[in-house]
Amino acid sequence: MKSVSYIKSIEDWKSSFSFFTPIKIRFSETDMFGHVNNVSPFIYFEEARIEFLKSVGLFNGSEDGIPIVADLQCDYHKQMFFSDQLRLYVKVNDIGNTSFDVHYLGVNQDDAVTLTGRGRMVYVDQKSGKPVKLSESIKEKLIHASE
Amino acid sequence: MKSVSYIKSIEDWKSSFSFFTPIKIRFSETDMFGHVNNVSPFIYFEEARIEFLKSVGLFNGSEDGIPIVADLQCDYHKQMFFSDQLRLYVKVNDIGNTSFDVHYLGVNQDDAVTLTGRGRMVYVDQKSGKPVKLSESIKEKLIHASE
Amino acid sequence: MKSVSYIKSIEDWKSSFSFFTPIKIRFSETDMFGHVNNVSPFIYFEEARIEFLKSVGLFNGSEDGIPIVADLQCDYHKQMFFSDQLRLYVKVNDIGNTSFDVHYLGVNQDDAVTLTGRGRMVYVDQKSGKPVKLSESIKEKLIHASE
Amino acid sequence: MKSVSYIKSIEDWKSSFSFFTPIKIRFSETDMFGHVNNVSPFIYFEEARIEFLKSVGLFNGSEDGIPIVADLQCDYHKQMFFSDQLRLYVKVNDIGNTSFDVHYLGVNQDDAVTLTGRGRMVYVDQKSGKPVKLSESIKEKLIHASE
Repeated sequence: MKSVSYIKSIEDWKSSFSFFTPIKIRFSETDMFGHVNNVSPFIYFEEARIEFLKSVGLFNGSEDGIPIVADLQCDYHKQMFFSDQLRLYVKVNDIGNTSFDVHYLGVNQDDAVTLTGRGRMVYVDQKSGKPVKLSESIKEKLIHASE
Repeated sequence: MKSVSYIKSIEDWKSSFSFFTPIKIRFSETDMFGHVNNVSPFIYFEEARIEFLKSVGLFNGSEDGIPIVADLQCDYHKQMFFSDQLRLYVKVNDIGNTSFDVHYLGVNQDDAVTLTGRGRMVYVDQKSGKPVKLSESIKEKLIHASE
Repeated sequence: MKSVSYIKSIEDWKSSFSFFTPIKIRFSETDMFGHVNNVSPFIYFEEARIEFLKSVGLFNGSEDGIPIVADLQCDYHKQMFFSDQLRLYVKVNDIGNTSFDVHYLGVNQDDAVTLTGRGRMVYVDQKSGKPVKLSESIKEKLIHASE
Repeated sequence: MKSVSYIKSIEDWKSSFSFFTPIKIRFSETDMFGHVNNVSPFIYFEEARIEFLKSVGLFNGSEDGIPIVADLQCDYHKQMFFSDQLRLYVKVNDIGNTSFDVHYLGVNQDDAVTLTGRGRMVYVDQKSGKPVKLSESIKEKLIHASE
């Protein structure tokens, strides 16, 4: 596998995930090159990220502000196809005062890594769009999830 | 062209349109069959419908309620491809007290009909989801647009 | 429920379905009106239709030609939201020599009908785009599925 | 503007772009948070990248292999809304023997930076999925475009 900046040891990194969500690849997410379009993994990242946040008691409207992505990156390690069975692993990494990192690992039916990625999340006030400090409650849930 | 229930005479029907918007077909809107996916025309209908409503002074937040589709149908007359240049014609048809019909005609770079469609629009209150009667101002704008 | 042309008796029609697939509504399929965008049901129709065809032994590359939609229509009976749990029922209806109808019924977590729809399918030759007669094998599978 | 790894001096970087394509934000690309969904910029990146490649004489089927993305990253500097007028600038950067980098800059109607991004492109053989060396002809076109 090619090396990527946010992964030091791929084996250590892979073994640090536990949460995953199965992803249903949709026919409309393929393109005329015959494979899954490069935009689609970001749809999957969002689906898996929200499932993960829900699993730790977030993304239920109880938080101050709305969680939005500050940046997002994806490495495409292997082409994906309509018939693929994708498991998308998610973990939280590096929790700061106003933001936290989410890491992503996509694995197909042969346990081959198809996608890796990461992205910073922040909470913003929906009206003003201004960042909101992470509450202690949010931090605790994220820290608990990363233990 | 195959016959469709909402078109009596195709020539008369075609000549009844004047407003159109050019549609940029996106690569991600194709699928692994090599053509434009069957979901994509509904993206184009929405884009053209909103451009049309804006052109007659609607869809600017000034109306009571939000315009939503009550039903939508599309006939695919000819496959579309990534390189196609699509013009999507829109007109309003049959304005009632609480709803109106929008008709759609898609034509490619060779003036061949690729898509026809129609769908009923209603205004609903965003909070309750309940239908709102069309105001005289909205009706006037739609009637004016259909003259 | 409002009446639609392809449903005579809603109770009879509903009870004629047996196959369904659960649909995962994605966050990116909502829109700024706060609900599921009107384009998204056609993504769901496609997902459910393909699952249905696979369940009867089709859509596996063994057929002559590729199955494409000739027309598609959707009635929106109830707004859908991100948190909804959608079951999408599919059945085949009216099998002809070169085409067949697929009917769709979407039901939410409260057993309320949110979507109904239908659309004609044809098989076309992928290169020429010309319609291909339904083989006896395809017909048999569809007829078997509709019994 | 927050700092990002692929930009040393934002002013120098901004002034190094010349090609851009206007992007039509679609209603279906917004989400229930009221803004443009985080997936949508990758649709825009692809649209602008293909327009750019076409403008330099590529992406016309004449090349050996198909251009695919090896990685992609996006920094969201400012929320975008349905009414925004987006210009997406594209340039090629760092042309290697088998791959090249594409940089992206999104600017709204107020000349505010909303998006920055980058991603590596490779050509692969469509059947085998294996990387193909960049031909001299492709390299020349890319080098010419970056002068």
